[in-house]
Amino acid sequence: MTTRLTAIYRVRSDDPTAIQARARSIAVEQSVEMPIEAIDEASVLSDVVGQVEAIIPVADGVFEVRIGLAVATILDGPEHADFGQLLNMLFGNTSLHADVVLHDVVLPSGLFQGPRHGIPGLRRLAGAPDRALTCSALKPQGLPPARLAALAERFARGGVDFIKDDHGLADQPYSPFADRVRACADAVHRANAATGRATGHATQYAPSLAGNLDQLRFQANLVRQAGLTTVIVSPMIAGPSNIQALVKEYPDLAFMAHPTLGGAARIAPELLIGKLFPLMGADAVIFPTFGGRFGYSPQTCRDLAANAASPPTPRLPALPVPAGGMTLGRVPEMLDFYGPDTMLLIGGNLLLARDRLTAETTVFTQAVASHVYG
Amino acid sequence: MTTRLTAIYRVRSDDPTAIQARARSIAVEQSVEMPIEAIDEASVLSDVVGQVEAIIPVADGVFEVRIGLAVATILDGPEHADFGQLLNMLFGNTSLHADVVLHDVVLPSGLFQGPRHGIPGLRRLAGAPDRALTCSALKPQGLPPARLAALAERFARGGVDFIKDDHGLADQPYSPFADRVRACADAVHRANAATGRATGHATQYAPSLAGNLDQLRFQANLVRQAGLTTVIVSPMIAGPSNIQALVKEYPDLAFMAHPTLGGAARIAPELLIGKLFPLMGADAVIFPTFGGRFGYSPQTCRDLAANAASPPTPRLPALPVPAGGMTLGRVPEMLDFYGPDTMLLIGGNLLLARDRLTAETTVFTQAVASHVYG
Repeated sequence: MTTRLTAIYRVRSDDPTAIQARARSIAVEQSVEMPIEAIDEASVLSDVVGQVEAIIPVADGVFEVRIGLAVATILDGPEHADFGQLLNMLFGNTSLHADVVLHDVVLPSGLFQGPRHGIPGLRRLAGAPDRALTCSALKPQGLPPARLAALAERFARGGVDFIKDDHGLADQPYSPFADRVRACADAVHRANAATGRATGHATQYAPSLAGNLDQLRFQANLVRQAGLTTVIVSPMIAGPSNIQALVKEYPDLAFMAHPTLGGAARIAPELLIGKLFPLMGADAVIFPTFGGRFGYSPQTCRDLAANAASPPTPRLPALPVPAGGMTLGRVPEMLDFYGPDTMLLIGGNLLLARDRLTAETTVFTQAVASHVYG
Repeated sequence: MTTRLTAIYRVRSDDPTAIQARARSIAVEQSVEMPIEAIDEASVLSDVVGQVEAIIPVADGVFEVRIGLAVATILDGPEHADFGQLLNMLFGNTSLHADVVLHDVVLPSGLFQGPRHGIPGLRRLAGAPDRALTCSALKPQGLPPARLAALAERFARGGVDFIKDDHGLADQPYSPFADRVRACADAVHRANAATGRATGHATQYAPSLAGNLDQLRFQANLVRQAGLTTVIVSPMIAGPSNIQALVKEYPDLAFMAHPTLGGAARIAPELLIGKLFPLMGADAVIFPTFGGRFGYSPQTCRDLAANAASPPTPRLPALPVPAGGMTLGRVPEMLDFYGPDTMLLIGGNLLLARDRLTAETTVFTQAVASHVYG
């Protein structure tokens, strides 16, 4: 008996009689990628070739296809499963086929550890054991470090729990990573001291890490040196295996995942953002909520958040962070929808307040703190 | 004046009166990602906010939207442009919108160097100055190194120019990278010596590199130590910035790019595989040709190949490698379609020959060598 994981696809097929053959072709494509009849090794046929486990009609012309793939194909050593290789075997070549969406995956328990901090760790950092958390973003791209730091200080004085870099901020000459992180960290620490939140509830600043693995490490070291606790990473750009390495090497840092380049129309966002990003070690996952600038449905958002926050034990839950065009007016609706195990992220809508930024941030944080769940 | 690159999108819009606003929203999403009216820095408004350069109807309900993005947003230092950050700014958040395809990009000349070896370097390695090149693949996943090496030896005795690892081969316990590369390199060197091709025309074995950047480097060093010249990488899984680093650190190695996880339905394959992979430094790009297992049209394949092989000077051309279910019977058609600046990759169809593998490979290589272009 070989250990298998189950990849779950949604496949369009207008001809129901063709779905059996299509399912088998996906099983071959995502395992041995060659004609079965050319394989003369019995163990490859029995243990490695993908197996169609089920084909279930789910809508008119759409079938759920469940395929068992050998766990051995994603191991890079007897004990270690590689996350890039997981995506490669789950959806590598099949992502090039327009009729298939990678819908879900069932992995053997313990194959990946997942978040090191998760929801309980982020709550400890914020000093907020029960209520929903709050977050805002440093923008726009193009401002120098001092200007971004001034924004950070005002967000912190407004009591927001986390301030993240816009995911577009990298190490640009107009705002070099080292200068930006030092300036913003100082500003947030200053605000925390001034508002008496240096103990208990303190604002956390999460810089965005970008570049190759060396650069990610260099930046993570600067984050540590600045006395910060949290970072934001972009798994689909940095490469899943590099995120996996970083999470292992920096167990003291909490990781928020950004969905950029997620192209989630082809990998179901409930899976990519809700399950896979936490499995890479993300403690919080940012996603575009329904009703904002992006088109995810309420059901997609509900499932994505549930996947992140309610993983199978013993894995730590990851914090769902709805974002993408949220407004102050929607805070009550969002809280009722997502519940308290969430962090609301409002960026541009707060920045619209301009000179009133601290006051508007206070309105935001108070609205979350005082919300009565409906 | 700020230096800009032009991102070219194809946007679905059933309401022609809405496309102006949609184009502006993409320009904002891919630059400052916040309400314009909240920006009070004049230089950000003039130099950083994306600019809609043109909106051109291209089909019923489909518009080409050209947006100028500041080159400064993708620099990580005064001189260096980061490839991950390029994808982030080109399509990061917009990849989450279902109505947009990233269709093309126009970059300032010299921003990325592109291939180090390109078509001329690969031709030198194969000792084949004019004709189309040939390639096959080591499969299936699951075979031990000795079995893969035996296949490699027979492919080499059949005179194929390049033998690549299946992109699913990583560092699995049943075929550890170091053992596999040593065994296959020895087998290919042995075959080259036996067939008198040790000088002039020699078969090149290209191992597949996988994992995080450290692992990629470790594997690239093993490739060098084994006396090999060429590797295959998966940019969308390894992360573009890591490929960029690797190409810079290993200028002696030729790089073939695999399209796995390209999900090219949302980034036009002509762009992603035909232009961007070479810009990362790929000397050859593998893609699924029309008429095989994947659905790319002849026009897509023609444009993809032309993009790779005919870049703006002074960049080196990258070699188009049509693959994905090719058969011996299609060799003449493929050669007439792609011309001699190509490498034909036939994997599974050769492996079907089983005991006759060397003979079948010889038929393949002879068919290419003797082809008269129609």
